[in-house]
Amino acid sequence: MVYSNNFCAGPASLPEPIYQALSQMVLNYQNTGLSLLSLSHRDQLFTQIKNKIKEHLCCLLTLSESYEILLMPAGASAQFAAIPMNLKQMGRALYINSGYWANSAIKEARKFIETGVIEGVDITIDNITEPYDYVHYTENETIDGVMWQTVPVTDFPLVCDMSSSFLSKPIDVAKYDMIYAGAQKNIGLPGVTVVLIKRTLVEQITEKAIPAVLSYQTMQQAESLYNTPDMFAWAAMELVLADLIKQGGLEVIAKKNIQKAALLYEAIDRSIFFRNNVTLNNRSPMNVVFHLPNDELTAKFLAFADSKGIYGIAGHRSIGGVRVSLYNAIELKAVEQLVSVMREFETLNDKTA
Amino acid sequence: MVYSNNFCAGPASLPEPIYQALSQMVLNYQNTGLSLLSLSHRDQLFTQIKNKIKEHLCCLLTLSESYEILLMPAGASAQFAAIPMNLKQMGRALYINSGYWANSAIKEARKFIETGVIEGVDITIDNITEPYDYVHYTENETIDGVMWQTVPVTDFPLVCDMSSSFLSKPIDVAKYDMIYAGAQKNIGLPGVTVVLIKRTLVEQITEKAIPAVLSYQTMQQAESLYNTPDMFAWAAMELVLADLIKQGGLEVIAKKNIQKAALLYEAIDRSIFFRNNVTLNNRSPMNVVFHLPNDELTAKFLAFADSKGIYGIAGHRSIGGVRVSLYNAIELKAVEQLVSVMREFETLNDKTA
Repeated sequence: MVYSNNFCAGPASLPEPIYQALSQMVLNYQNTGLSLLSLSHRDQLFTQIKNKIKEHLCCLLTLSESYEILLMPAGASAQFAAIPMNLKQMGRALYINSGYWANSAIKEARKFIETGVIEGVDITIDNITEPYDYVHYTENETIDGVMWQTVPVTDFPLVCDMSSSFLSKPIDVAKYDMIYAGAQKNIGLPGVTVVLIKRTLVEQITEKAIPAVLSYQTMQQAESLYNTPDMFAWAAMELVLADLIKQGGLEVIAKKNIQKAALLYEAIDRSIFFRNNVTLNNRSPMNVVFHLPNDELTAKFLAFADSKGIYGIAGHRSIGGVRVSLYNAIELKAVEQLVSVMREFETLNDKTA
Repeated sequence: MVYSNNFCAGPASLPEPIYQALSQMVLNYQNTGLSLLSLSHRDQLFTQIKNKIKEHLCCLLTLSESYEILLMPAGASAQFAAIPMNLKQMGRALYINSGYWANSAIKEARKFIETGVIEGVDITIDNITEPYDYVHYTENETIDGVMWQTVPVTDFPLVCDMSSSFLSKPIDVAKYDMIYAGAQKNIGLPGVTVVLIKRTLVEQITEKAIPAVLSYQTMQQAESLYNTPDMFAWAAMELVLADLIKQGGLEVIAKKNIQKAALLYEAIDRSIFFRNNVTLNNRSPMNVVFHLPNDELTAKFLAFADSKGIYGIAGHRSIGGVRVSLYNAIELKAVEQLVSVMREFETLNDKTA
């Protein structure tokens, strides 16, 4: 099968020119005769990539000097452990459980810290007075198709997993003490996680028994080069960030993402086959999760979409159904093509519904 | 500058056809119209890569069923913490300090376990009766240019960091309880570390407060897919391993590596400029570390080599001098070219020595 549209939930699609650029860098990086894959990570050519990533993030987020940018190895799952290990002081943290990934973060945190848990999305927590080392929430749930529309207000350090929504819209960074995001959704490839963290929070870390690759102090001191990083993923991130700036920044990106999501939700809402059960306000513009009336029709639709060159829309193995991921790199045209396939499926299957 | 030979200590060179294959996979993986970079890690196309890696390792090492193959995120440095966290039982481990990397492993282990330390290379430890959870050693020291020629014999579980020597020669796996190797030297790219570990050792793990991404039990249960892995690095590893098999396996590779190292050490030993201070028996065939009479001549030689298209031979920032890394992908021809450049430098600088 040859696919023409990839709506995979991650590793996500990249803009086509970035595949071209990366493909070329594998062969010959900046006309050095060397592959990017075999550059020394201490080479100034690679330092330039690192510096550009920081510049791009500062530009996109108008980041103040009070935040440190760390590029950490492995994915957000590594941060699920790193956060309690690094931020533990009293030994108690509050987690807001909004779905699959928030729950994964909670399960991992429990190994290292006592966790209070509140269920919900867009809930108010400013009335909580019991002291916590930090409050953690997950802005977007890729499997449940749910996204927060507000930022919770709290007196305790606020930590946000933005893996699947980072840089999909403007971020009021000042509201957070720490934001982290695995790169393989909106900003590149698996293997690197961006951590934005207040320098004061890093300074306060007292725990010593933290693996160096998960230690914010170690990574800060080493300027994210404690060990050999996933250089290819860093290079991809640099290209993606530069492209976001070139497109006009996060306001422009957000507008495009809202337009894409509106088109798809509209197609679902007017359909007799497709159903989305998320509260209107919390529908995720990143991951549109929907169901058909029964498993047979779901399988039929997935096979039909596959035959039309559409890749990566089977729902997560834990809940089934359909999931369409509309990360930054997905063009409106791709969503239009998907909606057209959905309509075609409806017409063909109208009598059997 | 356009370089023609890359002797970088890691990320190391890959065989030229592998750059070509990876470059193509970025654009279109197996004629699917999809980039390898944006495949789902649950896709059967990716499962095939994982299965092939395991098959290749079993083939190259005639690995018995009693060993588990884990593909862990991040580099060997992550294992420096993972090993004591996972293998801690009584809470005491013995480390053999052979140089820079062994010492790095010791420093990291001390965060999690009481460590006994013995200095040396090729030392005998079969007389040690004091109980330890495990004995750890580093087969090859990339910075010191030192390699063990023997395998230490002990009654305690033997753990070996083979990051820079793995698959450069045959391995008698049965002598080890655990072998680990970051991929970016002989078997691919940074971002993935191979762990070969006795299943019985994994079963014995009792500690629960281990980050999931560093937990051998979690990774075993998830068949190395606990979280989104560095898929590009896995694909590179699959290609490298297949190439080693195609070349004739580890006996053939070892012969080639010995030949390369012999040529370079010979050039050093007959020279008035170049000096290697490692005991003959422990000279590393992987990392040939040498010095010139003074810093001025070193700088002059490095600049000369650079002008001849040779990349990546400056010594590690901790010790200076020259370091030439001769990992599997380096061809004999490249070493011949380097030796010729060394001779040319000697001739040009003879009068100034």
